[in-house]
Amino acid sequence: MKFLSFLDARQQGQGPQLGIALDNGKIFNVTAAVRALPAGEADGLPQSMDALIDADDTPLAALAQLTQRPGNEAWMVGQEQVRHLPPLQPRRNVFCVGRNYREHIIEGNIAKGIPPNTFPEAIEFFTKPSTTVVGHGWDVNRHAALTNSLDYEVELAIVIGKRGVNISEADALDYIFGYTVVNDVTARDLQRRHGQWFKGKGLDTTCPVGPVIVHKSAFGDPNSKRLELEVNGEIRQSANTDEMIFNVQAVIAQLSAGLTLLPGDIISTGTPKGVGYAAIPPRCLNVGDVMTARVEGIGDLTNQVVA
Amino acid sequence: MKFLSFLDARQQGQGPQLGIALDNGKIFNVTAAVRALPAGEADGLPQSMDALIDADDTPLAALAQLTQRPGNEAWMVGQEQVRHLPPLQPRRNVFCVGRNYREHIIEGNIAKGIPPNTFPEAIEFFTKPSTTVVGHGWDVNRHAALTNSLDYEVELAIVIGKRGVNISEADALDYIFGYTVVNDVTARDLQRRHGQWFKGKGLDTTCPVGPVIVHKSAFGDPNSKRLELEVNGEIRQSANTDEMIFNVQAVIAQLSAGLTLLPGDIISTGTPKGVGYAAIPPRCLNVGDVMTARVEGIGDLTNQVVA
Repeated sequence: MKFLSFLDARQQGQGPQLGIALDNGKIFNVTAAVRALPAGEADGLPQSMDALIDADDTPLAALAQLTQRPGNEAWMVGQEQVRHLPPLQPRRNVFCVGRNYREHIIEGNIAKGIPPNTFPEAIEFFTKPSTTVVGHGWDVNRHAALTNSLDYEVELAIVIGKRGVNISEADALDYIFGYTVVNDVTARDLQRRHGQWFKGKGLDTTCPVGPVIVHKSAFGDPNSKRLELEVNGEIRQSANTDEMIFNVQAVIAQLSAGLTLLPGDIISTGTPKGVGYAAIPPRCLNVGDVMTARVEGIGDLTNQVVA
Repeated sequence: MKFLSFLDARQQGQGPQLGIALDNGKIFNVTAAVRALPAGEADGLPQSMDALIDADDTPLAALAQLTQRPGNEAWMVGQEQVRHLPPLQPRRNVFCVGRNYREHIIEGNIAKGIPPNTFPEAIEFFTKPSTTVVGHGWDVNRHAALTNSLDYEVELAIVIGKRGVNISEADALDYIFGYTVVNDVTARDLQRRHGQWFKGKGLDTTCPVGPVIVHKSAFGDPNSKRLELEVNGEIRQSANTDEMIFNVQAVIAQLSAGLTLLPGDIISTGTPKGVGYAAIPPRCLNVGDVMTARVEGIGDLTNQVVA
């Protein structure tokens, strides 16, 4: 199943709704459907993404039944009535992985004038604060007063479903709730000037997440998924997660060593080659540009750069 | 006023209590006192640190009166009945500043074999996740399976009281609720091995915070405070915040450029010279070591290293 958080034009003032993206293109409004159930039947059924993730997969079968329940077509919403929210408002910073695709590392090394085949021996983790997170269809600020080199980065992101620490690679997939897409928008000049990457990665609205979280049971092998990024319809990044130096299991194992992961944590796994700053000449983002970040099996995450 | 969060042995099962550290050495239990007020009189009075910070200084005078109210000696608690909590459970990662004291940068440069007088041109920000945060008197894990070089770092930390972005240095102090002490415990080998500092800074229990938050109205100039760190009673770090390259106002201005700060955000401002890894030979932390981090006007933050 594909889950999302959204505002439903038919449920004005009701706040974030938990939805299921159906195969027919419509969104099933779980929150509204659960609230309409007779007393007692709603027990254990989540009304938000937070509640769903905290429930540790338990309600999945019941939710599938709910979408099929006679009369529940009433809770199917057309895309035109949907305002996407970030599927999950992270409870702490988004964990991110730097330099995880061989060809992207090489392009970065060349751009920096260092030997091309210089690779990290361990994963380079950093974070993006909650104020970076926006949903599918939301604007990304150009931050023109602060940066001359705003750049995109399509990434496969993990959503943690279960608390854990010192997780082995063998157990890592058990701790995952599902997968989503992150566009790790980056101010390259700030990334360099401030030494550590946090500042260049931390500007408001620079972490589009979505459009949905695909439950792991519907996703298959995360280490074999195509991912792409388009700017104004032109493909700039095109790769496969099988090119990652550190795969999903390794990311979880290294991050969770001595560091407890919590349900709802988002971990973005790094970007492949094709970023704007490494192009010759560099091709950074401008006001009006439309970015679409896409991972196979999840969907399109589209955001426009605005002044 | 000095505020803290604590468990009160006389209020078993009541959860975190908001306290005021009184000049007589006792803790005034604000939460219990407010709950005991007649209906109507408790309006607008906070029962938690979160509520206090969100109230934007409004209840300060009323809280001072509350401690003086006849009969309220009943809510004064002796230290022996107090279990400190982190004064604030941060709602997102703790923001941290690297390399902000000239002499500390020089000792680090020498330890790394690079020219001593190489200073950052802009602030190096990184973060510590919520799972690092512990209170005064709590244990810090040695993480012996992961690191051979656990180290201490005493720092003055800012607690933000008001939402803001693109805050000027001239306005910066207005956005502060108060000040506390952070001990930015660091695994030096992981800090180096993982490129970005996050991993070496992110291990569970490696961010003691406290013992109190001193409201800015009682703190004076933050850029002129002595700070020290002792290990087993021996002073290892001893400096003054006037040695910071980037002062408190500059830290807020650079961090908030394009990045919205929120009430309850904690910003740690960097550590002075005297860290263990730069000693010759290095003097890293061992099981049983007792660290006391101290900032003038705030108090002692003591934590033991355990297996």
